[in-house]
Amino acid sequence: MCATTIGVFDSGFGGLTVLRELLPLIPGAHFIYLGDSARLPYGSKSQTTIARYAVESARFLEAHGADHLVIACNTASALAMREIQEAVAIPVTGVIDPVVDAAYQRHPNSDVLVLATTATVQSHAYRDQCATHGLRANEKACPLLVPLVEEGWVDNPITRDVLRVYLSEALSESSPEAVLLGCTHYPLIAPVIQAVLQELGSSAEVIDSARATAIAIERAIRLSHPASSGPATFQCYATDSVDKFARLGSQFLGQPMPRVELLDLGG
Amino acid sequence: MCATTIGVFDSGFGGLTVLRELLPLIPGAHFIYLGDSARLPYGSKSQTTIARYAVESARFLEAHGADHLVIACNTASALAMREIQEAVAIPVTGVIDPVVDAAYQRHPNSDVLVLATTATVQSHAYRDQCATHGLRANEKACPLLVPLVEEGWVDNPITRDVLRVYLSEALSESSPEAVLLGCTHYPLIAPVIQAVLQELGSSAEVIDSARATAIAIERAIRLSHPASSGPATFQCYATDSVDKFARLGSQFLGQPMPRVELLDLGG
Repeated sequence: MCATTIGVFDSGFGGLTVLRELLPLIPGAHFIYLGDSARLPYGSKSQTTIARYAVESARFLEAHGADHLVIACNTASALAMREIQEAVAIPVTGVIDPVVDAAYQRHPNSDVLVLATTATVQSHAYRDQCATHGLRANEKACPLLVPLVEEGWVDNPITRDVLRVYLSEALSESSPEAVLLGCTHYPLIAPVIQAVLQELGSSAEVIDSARATAIAIERAIRLSHPASSGPATFQCYATDSVDKFARLGSQFLGQPMPRVELLDLGG
Repeated sequence: MCATTIGVFDSGFGGLTVLRELLPLIPGAHFIYLGDSARLPYGSKSQTTIARYAVESARFLEAHGADHLVIACNTASALAMREIQEAVAIPVTGVIDPVVDAAYQRHPNSDVLVLATTATVQSHAYRDQCATHGLRANEKACPLLVPLVEEGWVDNPITRDVLRVYLSEALSESSPEAVLLGCTHYPLIAPVIQAVLQELGSSAEVIDSARATAIAIERAIRLSHPASSGPATFQCYATDSVDKFARLGSQFLGQPMPRVELLDLGG
């Protein structure tokens, strides 16, 4: 029996939070992680450019044996899913549908709050996907959260103060039952987000996109591949900033990072 | 008599802080500002790519009549000055030499602290330029300051808290006589930086790179062009994110932004 190989793609290393959830969920699988760090952030680029970059990475992962592809990048999930699906012959799962599905299962017909980067908010991909499920989404851009997480200020009073500002603003506009984390950096501060929500009098449940995406992929894989045993294995490629991967990767992955191989996908 | 035309280039709109200082200093001049916002941030790109982008912008400004070029971008000043100078036939001034010169004039043979982005710190361009003047530079990466300024949190307790962390760390390593602002976003929070330094017991003087660069250019222009009168005029081009220019530009420029023209320099 041949174990499954799963390609995981992100514009940087945020998608390692998705890989972190996947590793224990799918025993025996082999994961290939590709962070297109030379060309991040995708958020400030045009849709055409983002689609071209994402398709190049998707093709690389398919050519290296992936039989399932995870787009662990909110920008590419929002703006390039169709192009990626047309470019490869393997199933593709993004991060937006799973987290919206999870919110819908737990809080149907509710108001939800989406925390995301400016680019993801401007795409309104979450609002539109929520609307198809009857969820009313308020999207809140939180541009300071990625740099705070990358600074390593995860359990830090300043991060808590910043979240108080963002969440107070958002809660003055609606009373959500669920808070969707629309950026793969945010799972690292999910407990702080939950704590600040409670402090502000909200009982909204934080729904972690990394976890929701991993569960969706485990279900899809289970249908097509017999269960395997033994620990999952993985390898990592980055198109630049291998240093940053090494420095921050283990924090995102929750375990020591393996050697990151440098990859040239061209300009 | 033909008034001078000065091209001002940055990867985004941070360089508007330099234009802000230039406008009152050089009456009668015409300024053309070009923000290569489609391809920012330069900091995460290779030296070859940064040089190629900067040269394209420099050539555009020369072709549009500039007879002096200001590289109001720390990354391009650190990594592409030679390539830019070789590509155009007009004088080129970057932001690093003027601020180091100003520090040297006011605090010769001293310890200085350079606050900058991670990319600029990693280039060590400030440390090396300081060393040629007999200044001992401690370079401190402050990755949260650009997003804080872009969030508009200029006079804000959170920005003050973040500065307390960065400056306490830096002051534990050296006792500078001058603090050099190595990023064109930082002049907007110069008063807060000066206040936090004093609060932490430091009497270091903040040296504003935008002001130092503008003074250096005014001197260079005065030598080659007769004084002119009347207000300076300017026009702005951006390669993307015209919205962000319109929204934040007036804050950086200290006056209402004119219409920003969208420019396509290619991929």
